Amino acid sequence: MLNVSIIGASGYTGAQLVDLVARHPDMTLARTFVSANSADAAKPLSAIHGNLAHLSQVRLEPISDEALAELAANMDLVFLATPHEASHDWMATLTSGRAKILDLSGAFRLKDTAVFSQFYGFEHTSTDALGNAVYGLAEWYPQAIAQSRIIAVPGCYPTASLSALKPLFNAQLLDSAVRPVINAVSGVTGAGRKASLANSFCEVSLQAYGVLGHRHTPEIEAYLGTPVIFTPHLGNFKRGILATVTVKTVAGCTAEQLNQAYHQAYADHPIVRLRESFPRLDDVVNTPFVDLHWKLDEKSGYAVITAAIDNVMKGAASQAIQCANLVSGLPVTKGLLAE
Amino acid sequence: MLNVSIIGASGYTGAQLVDLVARHPDMTLARTFVSANSADAAKPLSAIHGNLAHLSQVRLEPISDEALAELAANMDLVFLATPHEASHDWMATLTSGRAKILDLSGAFRLKDTAVFSQFYGFEHTSTDALGNAVYGLAEWYPQAIAQSRIIAVPGCYPTASLSALKPLFNAQLLDSAVRPVINAVSGVTGAGRKASLANSFCEVSLQAYGVLGHRHTPEIEAYLGTPVIFTPHLGNFKRGILATVTVKTVAGCTAEQLNQAYHQAYADHPIVRLRESFPRLDDVVNTPFVDLHWKLDEKSGYAVITAAIDNVMKGAASQAIQCANLVSGLPVTKGLLAE
Amino acid sequence: MLNVSIIGASGYTGAQLVDLVARHPDMTLARTFVSANSADAAKPLSAIHGNLAHLSQVRLEPISDEALAELAANMDLVFLATPHEASHDWMATLTSGRAKILDLSGAFRLKDTAVFSQFYGFEHTSTDALGNAVYGLAEWYPQAIAQSRIIAVPGCYPTASLSALKPLFNAQLLDSAVRPVINAVSGVTGAGRKASLANSFCEVSLQAYGVLGHRHTPEIEAYLGTPVIFTPHLGNFKRGILATVTVKTVAGCTAEQLNQAYHQAYADHPIVRLRESFPRLDDVVNTPFVDLHWKLDEKSGYAVITAAIDNVMKGAASQAIQCANLVSGLPVTKGLLAE
Amino acid sequence: MLNVSIIGASGYTGAQLVDLVARHPDMTLARTFVSANSADAAKPLSAIHGNLAHLSQVRLEPISDEALAELAANMDLVFLATPHEASHDWMATLTSGRAKILDLSGAFRLKDTAVFSQFYGFEHTSTDALGNAVYGLAEWYPQAIAQSRIIAVPGCYPTASLSALKPLFNAQLLDSAVRPVINAVSGVTGAGRKASLANSFCEVSLQAYGVLGHRHTPEIEAYLGTPVIFTPHLGNFKRGILATVTVKTVAGCTAEQLNQAYHQAYADHPIVRLRESFPRLDDVVNTPFVDLHWKLDEKSGYAVITAAIDNVMKGAASQAIQCANLVSGLPVTKGLLAE
Repeated sequence: MLNVSIIGASGYTGAQLVDLVARHPDMTLARTFVSANSADAAKPLSAIHGNLAHLSQVRLEPISDEALAELAANMDLVFLATPHEASHDWMATLTSGRAKILDLSGAFRLKDTAVFSQFYGFEHTSTDALGNAVYGLAEWYPQAIAQSRIIAVPGCYPTASLSALKPLFNAQLLDSAVRPVINAVSGVTGAGRKASLANSFCEVSLQAYGVLGHRHTPEIEAYLGTPVIFTPHLGNFKRGILATVTVKTVAGCTAEQLNQAYHQAYADHPIVRLRESFPRLDDVVNTPFVDLHWKLDEKSGYAVITAAIDNVMKGAASQAIQCANLVSGLPVTKGLLAE
Repeated sequence: MLNVSIIGASGYTGAQLVDLVARHPDMTLARTFVSANSADAAKPLSAIHGNLAHLSQVRLEPISDEALAELAANMDLVFLATPHEASHDWMATLTSGRAKILDLSGAFRLKDTAVFSQFYGFEHTSTDALGNAVYGLAEWYPQAIAQSRIIAVPGCYPTASLSALKPLFNAQLLDSAVRPVINAVSGVTGAGRKASLANSFCEVSLQAYGVLGHRHTPEIEAYLGTPVIFTPHLGNFKRGILATVTVKTVAGCTAEQLNQAYHQAYADHPIVRLRESFPRLDDVVNTPFVDLHWKLDEKSGYAVITAAIDNVMKGAASQAIQCANLVSGLPVTKGLLAE
Repeated sequence: MLNVSIIGASGYTGAQLVDLVARHPDMTLARTFVSANSADAAKPLSAIHGNLAHLSQVRLEPISDEALAELAANMDLVFLATPHEASHDWMATLTSGRAKILDLSGAFRLKDTAVFSQFYGFEHTSTDALGNAVYGLAEWYPQAIAQSRIIAVPGCYPTASLSALKPLFNAQLLDSAVRPVINAVSGVTGAGRKASLANSFCEVSLQAYGVLGHRHTPEIEAYLGTPVIFTPHLGNFKRGILATVTVKTVAGCTAEQLNQAYHQAYADHPIVRLRESFPRLDDVVNTPFVDLHWKLDEKSGYAVITAAIDNVMKGAASQAIQCANLVSGLPVTKGLLAE
Repeated sequence: MLNVSIIGASGYTGAQLVDLVARHPDMTLARTFVSANSADAAKPLSAIHGNLAHLSQVRLEPISDEALAELAANMDLVFLATPHEASHDWMATLTSGRAKILDLSGAFRLKDTAVFSQFYGFEHTSTDALGNAVYGLAEWYPQAIAQSRIIAVPGCYPTASLSALKPLFNAQLLDSAVRPVINAVSGVTGAGRKASLANSFCEVSLQAYGVLGHRHTPEIEAYLGTPVIFTPHLGNFKRGILATVTVKTVAGCTAEQLNQAYHQAYADHPIVRLRESFPRLDDVVNTPFVDLHWKLDEKSGYAVITAAIDNVMKGAASQAIQCANLVSGLPVTKGLLAE
């Protein structure tokens, strides 16, 4: 049994991790922390996450430098569902022992430190850790993930976008003169669990945001290999991302070539479901799956692909579990799919 | 044309009032204020209420003692979509001139000042104004409203509950040994426009609250004349209240007697629609109507009535307009229904 | 491993059963049927239930008399997520072999056959099976369920209502002169998977229905032991039931007595979570739990209890799994809760 | 007063027209018809549209050839909220008298009859009427509309898309080598009022449909003047369309040029609101407005524009009223905006 701790359990991603770890046949949830010494630290878990009311043995602890050092020494796995800067600041301590770190923040996803000052608002100085970190897109970098001790679990939008685009880009089917256009709609959990007027029930309504400047754009471009136009939207639902991707293919590209590209890319990856029709968001909500479907207009050369994920699961917590399985030598879907 | 000002236009009720006054053929929106000197005071209206983006001439002003005195002197009508304590504190100044006041807070709804300390958390000392205030349930107290200068516009739950119950109680059809049971579900606008974790999009989910202790219970009981059991719920929608009322009728009560009670009560009140089937909430959302339907089980003597309103309209702003019409000698539905 | 078949997999309850059986460590999903020889019989499961797209090995078969006899002979367990009349008509054949039957229809829930003609619209002639059937309210009748071969899985509203009321009634805390009032709001899955104008997206809006005449009333009364006033509502959400129950307690009843009644009733029943505050519907959606909370006004003697369940899970499929576990000698929560 | 009739009042667009005409100060709702001789013809309006329960004087009539001829002779205006083929078949009769026709179907929107067989599934033989019909995009073709007797009210998606794109295309700011990409999400009312599994409450979930083949594509292209990639989506809400449009601008294009293009195009058009930030869908729901906002990345030359409309209003009924006002010599916003 793997000894596991979770930091940041008062948020939606942290709560999902608590639930997944508690169900995982090879993991024991040793300790659970809030990421800030907020009022939540004193509350029972069920007062924060009513859906976890049955986990009465789980206690939330306030985080501290001592606790970080202890986790580094004694845990097999530590999940960070924490703000970017907290992950950045704590990584050196957390990697001082034997623990392997699954970081769900954005702090270690990109090699180019300029991105952090421009898009994340802080200077990145944890250079060693950044050099050792591996991008945890589980279907695409399984070997690197398995051998790393710091895994930067991808952002939710990049997971959906890259799952849709990498097969085509890698198969050299994209016309490099026309940028892929990614329109994605996310559930409100993507904005985190906090009091804010913008995310209050009555204010939420379908709306574009972060237009031509969202921080997930450099992440998508870095792991795709080509620039994109990415427009995120807030949707009036709690969970899920539907990414609709429009691409121009190279001259002469056929529907059959697209099919092949997807089937070859995902042949051995049960988390990716290649669907027979365009997926509905509900097909993936509360699941670890990525659902993909695509269509090419051979005449114009334009193709449309949609990718659906649960932003809290494949966009965060269940992909972190995939990475944790890989880094622990377990089957990648352990604890996620029935065997 | 009536000169009208609105205080508290940054909230949902205030915005609805702005919209209704701007459309009202006999009203001119002279000035518009925020109720606290918040950051909202500096914003254009459309930055706060995107749906009112066409009202580019409406400017939000910060409120002040001077402004209150000036409104008292120069306005025909002042609408207060303000916190209870603000209405309480400002009423003496506001009534020092010729203006008539439509107060949408709870500060002047009840004659028993003990209720304010117990349920509203403040001591009521505006005794004169309280003595002069009239309860603005428009279908039931039209003469008193027409002759008053302070109208306490009813709460949303009491409006729905009293509309359902008063015809039966007044016709002496209720068994006094069994309390009416009111279960009501309200949209989230009822909680106001503010940043709060409880009302954030991801947290809202059907739930009872204020059980056996909600501040609208004494208001319902005061204007019904008998105690009730009132259980409010938060619903996963923005606007509307559906109140389901269960009563035990007096022995021998017939369905025909119930029908008569409702038809007599509402014969000349076009805002109340006596429906042929149980209303859906959407039937009344964004309208000034109260929709009522009822059914009696003659064998057991129990009856169920449902009342549907838009909490922001008939539960607040459009009822305030009804009262404003009455107090101004206009037809009660002016500006609300097509003629 | 238990050999399991499911009839009626094109509906929401059937699909939930497919999912639960596929994850259950002691069950093998042998065969899956549609309950009518509809067009769905020819479709892949994922064309009907996109969320189950990964279960590519599951094929839907049309049902037939031959198939029923074969299931009776060869299955350990057969789940019926079928129309009431189908369950009624097929039960004799299905019980002709060794299979144990979990019937999720209403056809075998009540002993009084007059109820079926009055509330279900058919004459009940399967008298022997009715005599042998046991009501599958898992927390209340575990021994009887374990020894039966026909288990009538309770309706969704009765599950919520009885979970809230039985502890109080059995502890003799209810004033028999005043009927308990049950107001419940159900998600639209409760209406089944079918094309209907009433359940189309744009028509659904909070609304009472089946007032003073819903077929779940006699079921609640039969297993509670006293008459109730039950008012169901359609809510604007997909899954879940929140039942708000108002009762008058016997003279002198204390809050402590209520607490004891609930804690004694559910001490060893992990599916029932006695909460510290009134549950939100989302706390139980997609879970097998019943969440309960209550409050007594000692002065008036009235108490309010709310019960939250997922109508497709504890209101149907997961309760059927509880029953299947009991009848198979497995721990009651097997396949539902992590061990 | 203009004598007005509406055909097709059992649908959502028809009901919206009834409401708008009933409120319009210069129109009298003379007669109201269902478009097919369905069961709805016998029902009171409020049994179909509960929100219109106060319009007790409105009766639904079955349509007939006689009625069509009578309307042609006696009405000033006839609104057709009817299936494409019905509009096609009835137009000759309807235009045989003095009535002017506002057709909200797709039957007269395009001059190229090949489109009807390919995208609408019927052969267009009403050649004269097609020749005389004018496309009713009110802000763009007001003179032509004012002089026509057959106005083809635009589709909902084209209204949103063209409102966003025409200012840029007409100002020659679009790079013709890269197609504009239109991603739009529509509320479910767009699918009409009917029983269908796909539009049942539990099945609706964000999803792309009609990918690379939707019938609104040729309509957009015809009135824009250049090919586009249009991907519609079904959203989990009742009303509204948010169209997110991504374009590549010509080399050197500046943000200031875009601003000018929009401000010049819409200077005298109060229905189009040029917003300071990206609009939320709720800003326009239940209103006649088009809300537009845009952003250009001068470095890459890509721009993103979003357009928000209410699909039932500006996407159908309120745009029809605009056209009716134009064709009747009234101010274009009469009955829609307060004066």
